[in-house]
Amino acid sequence: MNNTATLLISCPDKKGIVASVANFLYEHNANILHADEHQDNENKLFFLRTEWDLMDFSINREEFKKLFTQTAKKFQMDWKIRYSSDKLNVALFLSKEDHCLADLLYRYKNNEINFNIKMTISNYPNAKELSEFYNIPFYEIPSTDNREKDEQKILSVLGKSNIDLIILARYMKIFSPEFIQKFGNPIINIHHSFLPSFVGARPYHQAYERGVKIIGATAHYVTAELDQGPIIDQDTLRISHRDSIENLIQKGKDIEKIVLSRAVKSHIEDRVLIYGNKTVVFD
Amino acid sequence: MNNTATLLISCPDKKGIVASVANFLYEHNANILHADEHQDNENKLFFLRTEWDLMDFSINREEFKKLFTQTAKKFQMDWKIRYSSDKLNVALFLSKEDHCLADLLYRYKNNEINFNIKMTISNYPNAKELSEFYNIPFYEIPSTDNREKDEQKILSVLGKSNIDLIILARYMKIFSPEFIQKFGNPIINIHHSFLPSFVGARPYHQAYERGVKIIGATAHYVTAELDQGPIIDQDTLRISHRDSIENLIQKGKDIEKIVLSRAVKSHIEDRVLIYGNKTVVFD
Amino acid sequence: MNNTATLLISCPDKKGIVASVANFLYEHNANILHADEHQDNENKLFFLRTEWDLMDFSINREEFKKLFTQTAKKFQMDWKIRYSSDKLNVALFLSKEDHCLADLLYRYKNNEINFNIKMTISNYPNAKELSEFYNIPFYEIPSTDNREKDEQKILSVLGKSNIDLIILARYMKIFSPEFIQKFGNPIINIHHSFLPSFVGARPYHQAYERGVKIIGATAHYVTAELDQGPIIDQDTLRISHRDSIENLIQKGKDIEKIVLSRAVKSHIEDRVLIYGNKTVVFD
Amino acid sequence: MNNTATLLISCPDKKGIVASVANFLYEHNANILHADEHQDNENKLFFLRTEWDLMDFSINREEFKKLFTQTAKKFQMDWKIRYSSDKLNVALFLSKEDHCLADLLYRYKNNEINFNIKMTISNYPNAKELSEFYNIPFYEIPSTDNREKDEQKILSVLGKSNIDLIILARYMKIFSPEFIQKFGNPIINIHHSFLPSFVGARPYHQAYERGVKIIGATAHYVTAELDQGPIIDQDTLRISHRDSIENLIQKGKDIEKIVLSRAVKSHIEDRVLIYGNKTVVFD
Repeated sequence: MNNTATLLISCPDKKGIVASVANFLYEHNANILHADEHQDNENKLFFLRTEWDLMDFSINREEFKKLFTQTAKKFQMDWKIRYSSDKLNVALFLSKEDHCLADLLYRYKNNEINFNIKMTISNYPNAKELSEFYNIPFYEIPSTDNREKDEQKILSVLGKSNIDLIILARYMKIFSPEFIQKFGNPIINIHHSFLPSFVGARPYHQAYERGVKIIGATAHYVTAELDQGPIIDQDTLRISHRDSIENLIQKGKDIEKIVLSRAVKSHIEDRVLIYGNKTVVFD
Repeated sequence: MNNTATLLISCPDKKGIVASVANFLYEHNANILHADEHQDNENKLFFLRTEWDLMDFSINREEFKKLFTQTAKKFQMDWKIRYSSDKLNVALFLSKEDHCLADLLYRYKNNEINFNIKMTISNYPNAKELSEFYNIPFYEIPSTDNREKDEQKILSVLGKSNIDLIILARYMKIFSPEFIQKFGNPIINIHHSFLPSFVGARPYHQAYERGVKIIGATAHYVTAELDQGPIIDQDTLRISHRDSIENLIQKGKDIEKIVLSRAVKSHIEDRVLIYGNKTVVFD
Repeated sequence: MNNTATLLISCPDKKGIVASVANFLYEHNANILHADEHQDNENKLFFLRTEWDLMDFSINREEFKKLFTQTAKKFQMDWKIRYSSDKLNVALFLSKEDHCLADLLYRYKNNEINFNIKMTISNYPNAKELSEFYNIPFYEIPSTDNREKDEQKILSVLGKSNIDLIILARYMKIFSPEFIQKFGNPIINIHHSFLPSFVGARPYHQAYERGVKIIGATAHYVTAELDQGPIIDQDTLRISHRDSIENLIQKGKDIEKIVLSRAVKSHIEDRVLIYGNKTVVFD
Repeated sequence: MNNTATLLISCPDKKGIVASVANFLYEHNANILHADEHQDNENKLFFLRTEWDLMDFSINREEFKKLFTQTAKKFQMDWKIRYSSDKLNVALFLSKEDHCLADLLYRYKNNEINFNIKMTISNYPNAKELSEFYNIPFYEIPSTDNREKDEQKILSVLGKSNIDLIILARYMKIFSPEFIQKFGNPIINIHHSFLPSFVGARPYHQAYERGVKIIGATAHYVTAELDQGPIIDQDTLRISHRDSIENLIQKGKDIEKIVLSRAVKSHIEDRVLIYGNKTVVFD
């Protein structure tokens, strides 16, 4: 894998943005590997993602920060740069169902996603063996009647590592707005329905009741409002009257795994830009 | 095409149903072409669809009715038989958008669906030319402030033919419960979202606002409650941040056409059984 | 899970088959859970699958065999019955890529598929740890220049257990016709293309060369002719010019896993009937 | 719709391309609406598509040509510019099946695709009425034993209008290499299979014989070698053992229509770049 940098930009749309960024990178001898742009013509917003090989790049991290800030200011850019050598530290959360966990751990071991899984946290004991098989520390933090205290424990465990991202891989507890704020970094959740259908508990039961002919899964960023955060990825699967609730739950697992892992990969590769309650996801 | 009969049965699940029906058909020398069964093990219900060639069948319509009633009673069957030579009479409704109309008319002309389109009704004048190209009488019944009176007019036009099925091919008015009751026969609607997401008006605008990554279309039977009737078919389509609302509307048309025509074909071929607010749709 | 029996029948299509089978099961008090039939009207063939609860069933295995043989003879049936309590014994084969193995082992542990995995066999050492984590004996049988001898070793390992099914979960060696014949039981392979496109080696490279816009995976029974056996299941995935060969290989893994596991599940649940070089797969 | 220009570029990948193009457009006050780039890192090729509003653009067509040629030379660019006000002239070809014709004519009338359909050509008489309903001249040119003479007639009819694109909307004759060369402009064909599977005649029959579980359709540019030209778009559809050949043909029509219209739209909007035997298709 190459040693690369990825630059993400959001700003008001204006003439000259691409020229400025392109000139900046060209002047410092960047060998561009990928570049994607998007204009939201309705809201007059501009989004850019570009990734370049650092091999011939003539400026270092500090210089980049200093120099690029000038361009950024001119266009009121919201920007960030990430270096592929800085892997994100991730904490995986789950409750009883471990299919998403097993899937992410396998992809981690096989380098399908370029992250560091630092820990698994569950309110049940069952994922211990699986986590440890992949050499990931497992923390059981049971859910009690005192959510505040539970969340305190979680924050304290998270604090041991420098966690950049929480992945809720079928974690069935809802975080308080305070927890989300204190943690401060992004949280990705997999919801087992095609949102906005079937918000909340037991979505497959809701889907079965309504008699839909297709089920779905949705990966989204967690916000204070339940299942309302910006959607990163979704997928659907055709079902029929033959499918019992058990079948829906079973078949749904396969799309949950794929949607969550795709969304996490997009996030880890800095392909996702949030604006308002929506996302731009560059492929 | 063969001259066939199709028998549809719903009843409480019990031992011996299949044997009874199979014996009945065998005794009267039916040459079975298709047979489908479904047990809903949760609700203890049984559903059956069977289609046979009438060539060698030894009893006529009256005899069938008389004789089969005995079997039906024994198992408390809700049943109906339809003969392929009796085509259903259909009325197509639309407002301004005519893509579903054009699609259904083309399929009608090419015998893709075995029905008689008897008329097109619209609250706008634009579909006149297209309908008449396919030799279908066109009735413009503008929507006024007086829904009762408008619906009276519609019922009077429908009354001229013996309409077995109304297809709402992007008809943007909502029928009153009274109209639905007076018409009495099934009404199929295409809703331009993946229900139960985005009920009601402007679903593509709602989808755009929510930032979903997939759009959908849903064909369902119309009941008194808006967009809540039994779902017959659905489909979905992947979109991205690049898609403007105009794109969603445009791309959505292709799934609307396909979902509606599939649902209508299933209904016309007696593949749909309603139970509660759900459907069994045999392929 | 219920204690059930599943009956599979193929025979020339004739009047009275369903009645005979239904009567037979009814007479012996079978509580039918699922029944599927298919008429191939072109080749005049009839296929049936029915599953019933053994709870109230009045005859035992020997009696069934003896009594049903009479019905079977009358209609020249090719038939088999399987009891859910008799799990099939399975051997998993792989070479270097272990994603299908990891997927099947996980499903095995979570009872998603009702089989006994008795062993993993590979021509490379790497899957040892993963197999043993799931308590499955691992046999490394390296490939040498002497295929006959290699296959002899494999047969000898298989002989230790009573293997009903071999699953080639990305095993990159081709079995000789002699091996296939000696083994005698079904072999399911996952081929990493949408057959019949890209038969043989390096199908993703072939797909990349041809510039297709969709890739696929195919699960099929192995016959003496390479990649030509009856297809059980397939799936496809949209790609674009952005995807390098590495991406195709990576993305393809997800459909390979799903297609193989679905095909294996269908086989294990006796949903697959082979006729000619094709399959009937009841859902 | 805006009055826009679209620039398409292919060239060897080099540092500075994006900066040069972006500067050029910025200097002449282009208001960029869309921009897409693609690096083929394996073949070291660079592709770019950019579309801008002409409202504030400071140079006219001749100036653009003259000035941009300098940039183009520096980077050995293969480039073309198209103005949205210059609609492409299109000739539609078909044989007996008219579903793709009906679909394209409908989209034409509803401005879903920004082209001028100038004529319909068929070797059968049946599409006359449909073409003329949409005010498109219809030419019947029957196929005789003398292909050269037939093609002469076709060229002569095409010569009456300035045809930029031929669309083979289920035209069942194969053009000679001479014809393709003489015509000189692109030809898009819809092949009713998932290429490279089932090249040539009767692909649904081939698919049925092979027992595939998914069928497909492929839109590609026509080259001298049958069904081997660069693929623009493909799609697939799940089928089952229940589907007769007639069903495959019927169901396939829906994907043929959609794939062909999508490919045509991509071509018309200058989203397709050919390289080698492959395409880049920007969404």
